[in-house]
Amino acid sequence: MSFYKLTLKYNGHRYQGWQKQPHTELTVQGQLNRALAKISKSKEVKTLGSGRTDTGVHALAQVVRVEIPLVIPPEKLVRALNSNLPDDIECLMAENADENFHPVFGSVDKTYRYIFALGKRRDPLLNQQITFMTRKLDIEKMEEACKLFVGKHDFADFFTVGTDVATTVREIFSCSLTKMEATGFFHDLCPEYFVFEVTGSGFLKQMVRLMVATIWNIGEGKIDAASLAESLRKPDGNKLAPVAPPQGLYLTKVTYNS
Amino acid sequence: MSFYKLTLKYNGHRYQGWQKQPHTELTVQGQLNRALAKISKSKEVKTLGSGRTDTGVHALAQVVRVEIPLVIPPEKLVRALNSNLPDDIECLMAENADENFHPVFGSVDKTYRYIFALGKRRDPLLNQQITFMTRKLDIEKMEEACKLFVGKHDFADFFTVGTDVATTVREIFSCSLTKMEATGFFHDLCPEYFVFEVTGSGFLKQMVRLMVATIWNIGEGKIDAASLAESLRKPDGNKLAPVAPPQGLYLTKVTYNS
Repeated sequence: MSFYKLTLKYNGHRYQGWQKQPHTELTVQGQLNRALAKISKSKEVKTLGSGRTDTGVHALAQVVRVEIPLVIPPEKLVRALNSNLPDDIECLMAENADENFHPVFGSVDKTYRYIFALGKRRDPLLNQQITFMTRKLDIEKMEEACKLFVGKHDFADFFTVGTDVATTVREIFSCSLTKMEATGFFHDLCPEYFVFEVTGSGFLKQMVRLMVATIWNIGEGKIDAASLAESLRKPDGNKLAPVAPPQGLYLTKVTYNS
Repeated sequence: MSFYKLTLKYNGHRYQGWQKQPHTELTVQGQLNRALAKISKSKEVKTLGSGRTDTGVHALAQVVRVEIPLVIPPEKLVRALNSNLPDDIECLMAENADENFHPVFGSVDKTYRYIFALGKRRDPLLNQQITFMTRKLDIEKMEEACKLFVGKHDFADFFTVGTDVATTVREIFSCSLTKMEATGFFHDLCPEYFVFEVTGSGFLKQMVRLMVATIWNIGEGKIDAASLAESLRKPDGNKLAPVAPPQGLYLTKVTYNS
């Protein structure tokens, strides 16, 4: 068997998340496995992603461990994959990998971005890529509140049960909110937007979307920063906000030591 | 009956063009008429667009004349439409209009933009909005060739038969190609792209897509600028290129005197 490390970019809009499922091929992993089986002419295909993005969530750089019974130069594997994957999944890079390479436990940190824009509740051309909303938000308060996430905390209140986890403690290395202005053609599509960016040791199910939604509630004055600090200090099983919509979320980077 | 002038933004990806059709509601005008019929509780709804965008073609500002048996403040009509239109069609503005307002013959000029990017043949996140391709193009040559379109010409070789027209002569006021660099989040999606922009008195069926495709062929060295000049001087019924794909095309502006 040969081992490869793939980097994938995908639009999660059409898919029921990353994770393959028995009843549908409409998952990103399902599509990848189908393409790999075709390329290697074998059913002996195994893949493992760095994280399970949810339905509608995108990736700019999802990292995947691939095990297939085929020796192929990495750049040829990229071309073969892009010929066999649907248009909303792209293989950016393939590298030969060590058999022991583990995309989840081997990672040093992961970065997610959440993109949202204010002033209207939707946009015909960017609805799949950005979450639009009409809430009135105090951006300074939100920028401040982002800092509370940094450090090692028990994220039990920022976690949707569904995956077995040994612990709900995670370390956040950085978390910020930035107002951005678009230029050129993209300015016509969306002149101003916000980027919530968080880098951490790992993330629980729907953790980023619960973090973003909590920051929105702080910006709207529905809850204060002290409630967030308290929830991180001593989780009580109560979430501070409903889960934010998936279409603004991107897995943007996974870092490995080697 | 009341008359309104609407400005619509839409993603043409899902639709069989602007023009309503008897056998499907999947046209932009079909969706608009359905929404207007619901709002005015009447089948006496008439709409007329400034131009018939094709399947997959977008609009940043399509102008539409609306005739409905309902008196409603324009800002309320905007809200009612956005509650009843699908997410890929947005009403940006409504104004009271004179009964004699004609969105086609009343317009002074129209502007279209075509957005494309080089270096790969697709992008998972922007496939609906930008045309991607791997052609090697001489951009300077293309910028120069754009100027040949400016002026009054017989565009018979830049026209797909299908609509009755009195003449194939049209006047182009400006035509340019510009290389752009994206910033921020959009830079991650598409760092560099090209904007072909053309403003004219009016456009024939698929005229802009034939202009763009001709410019591509000049950039690739398949034809030279002299062939374009000749085709505009004396059309011979031969097209200089196949029609460019629809997903990069936007109707961006329609200007009226009043």
